[in-house]
Amino acid sequence: MLASAGRRLLRALLQAHKRPLQPSRDMRLVQFQAPHLAGPRLGLESESGGGVIDLNAFDPTLPKTMMQFLEQGEATLSVARRALAAQLPVLPRSEVTFLAPVTRPDKVVCVGLNYVDHCKEQNVPVPKEPIIFSKFGSSIVGPYDEVVLPPESQEVDWEVELAVIIGKKGKHIKATDAMAYVAGFTVAQDVSARDWQMRRNGKQWLLGKTFDTFCPLGPALVTKDSVADPHNLKISCRVNGEVVQSSSTSQMVFKTEELIAWVSQFVTLYPGDVILTGTPPGVGVFRKPPVFLKEPDLGKSGRKQP
Amino acid sequence: MLASAGRRLLRALLQAHKRPLQPSRDMRLVQFQAPHLAGPRLGLESESGGGVIDLNAFDPTLPKTMMQFLEQGEATLSVARRALAAQLPVLPRSEVTFLAPVTRPDKVVCVGLNYVDHCKEQNVPVPKEPIIFSKFGSSIVGPYDEVVLPPESQEVDWEVELAVIIGKKGKHIKATDAMAYVAGFTVAQDVSARDWQMRRNGKQWLLGKTFDTFCPLGPALVTKDSVADPHNLKISCRVNGEVVQSSSTSQMVFKTEELIAWVSQFVTLYPGDVILTGTPPGVGVFRKPPVFLKEPDLGKSGRKQP
Repeated sequence: MLASAGRRLLRALLQAHKRPLQPSRDMRLVQFQAPHLAGPRLGLESESGGGVIDLNAFDPTLPKTMMQFLEQGEATLSVARRALAAQLPVLPRSEVTFLAPVTRPDKVVCVGLNYVDHCKEQNVPVPKEPIIFSKFGSSIVGPYDEVVLPPESQEVDWEVELAVIIGKKGKHIKATDAMAYVAGFTVAQDVSARDWQMRRNGKQWLLGKTFDTFCPLGPALVTKDSVADPHNLKISCRVNGEVVQSSSTSQMVFKTEELIAWVSQFVTLYPGDVILTGTPPGVGVFRKPPVFLKEPDLGKSGRKQP
Repeated sequence: MLASAGRRLLRALLQAHKRPLQPSRDMRLVQFQAPHLAGPRLGLESESGGGVIDLNAFDPTLPKTMMQFLEQGEATLSVARRALAAQLPVLPRSEVTFLAPVTRPDKVVCVGLNYVDHCKEQNVPVPKEPIIFSKFGSSIVGPYDEVVLPPESQEVDWEVELAVIIGKKGKHIKATDAMAYVAGFTVAQDVSARDWQMRRNGKQWLLGKTFDTFCPLGPALVTKDSVADPHNLKISCRVNGEVVQSSSTSQMVFKTEELIAWVSQFVTLYPGDVILTGTPPGVGVFRKPPVFLKEPDLGKSGRKQP
């Protein structure tokens, strides 16, 4: 029997610092479902916390998955830009279910110890090169889906993260060229079973990181041109209404460009690939005493940016 | 500049022990290309080392990728069975390019230290539970493609492995039910950059295991009903014609059924998921002195089963 954590277990939040609201110009791509529409569809969140514009209704030739949308590059993006500029009907938020903005990517790349303040919290030196691990795509769930607390773990912890979504295939990408390969950003949880990550499985982190539902993503893929500075965003996580993580992406040790350059030394990046860029301090395992998620922990709903 | 190892760098071999040849009854599914045919297609290897029957020509409604073929389950398998029973034209092997039998799976699950004789070689105890790590799907290449020796590593090693291909979605699968979730078997190389696996990246194995081209697969997905006993197969690897690994899958610590039960505790398995079941002894890193692949190492071609 699976224990299920509450629907609103974790509230992951990314907010731009001191940035004027430009809701009509931000492009916030989503995958969603609605009772009256068949299957998952592509849409635009009208603004952070707003309703959804149905992109497939605007242009029936558009693909219905974000993976295919991203693979088509500028051609599909320009359609989404036209939809954003038009006055289109907005489905109320209460009538849609948000899926993760990307599903079934080739890769979910994760980075360990990538916040200066998170390294201090553990009293470990800041890494000299990125530490890369992964989750399977099967761990991805929507932003408001339940995180299932598996009976196999007693130590499930939160980790809010800025996620980078790749928009263009590339290998051996230079840091100076890296932003050309980025589609945009979203917010993620790198949910982690600390017992499995730290003490089991020959200390390979994978299993502790990749239980089903351990990668909530979204709701929106905010395109890169809609994010003034991805490395100057407030990032926070609430559990049961309490702020447990609160930092800034300015604390990242290796920034988006460096991470793309590093990872693409090893692997070809594909459209839809997700890079979780590491978590700030405040995770449960380093509290004294440690705190872990339990049923039925509930988060307090809040506006999410991106 | 990339150094490239020769086309026939590694010869991975799986052979059934004492099993009468039944070429007309073995189902050996492949993905292939041919100059006169557009795009990748599905086919049947007529026998191990034989030519290819074009399944998409036999039934144009069949999907052209193994992922979709497997997702459709029994419906598509029965078409392949009819093709096997019919007298169909066989494309000569010289006219086709074999791709990996599965491409872009959700997961490539790998198992460490899973041969009794490989544990002895390292003088480490046999694990009490499976050690699970992974490769990204982007590391998969065809069985005769080049393994690219990356300039980032000086210690690229071979690891021949039996690979299990999942045929049906499942979670929390019991060992006694596990074979119902298997589509079949193929042969793989878990090519490994030992420097990155063992001494870099915070000792997380992922990067050393997942360079592009580090997962040659195939040529054939041999369906489970064509393999009398997957745990009684000769398994060997040759480099430059020399047999460097030679063992039996009977040496596996955790067998296919136990691995599926173990992994599916953590993650939902999907059709097309690949499980590399570990390597026997004879890898380069434990030789005295250690031996690694270098340009232009060449393998000697041989018949491969599956």
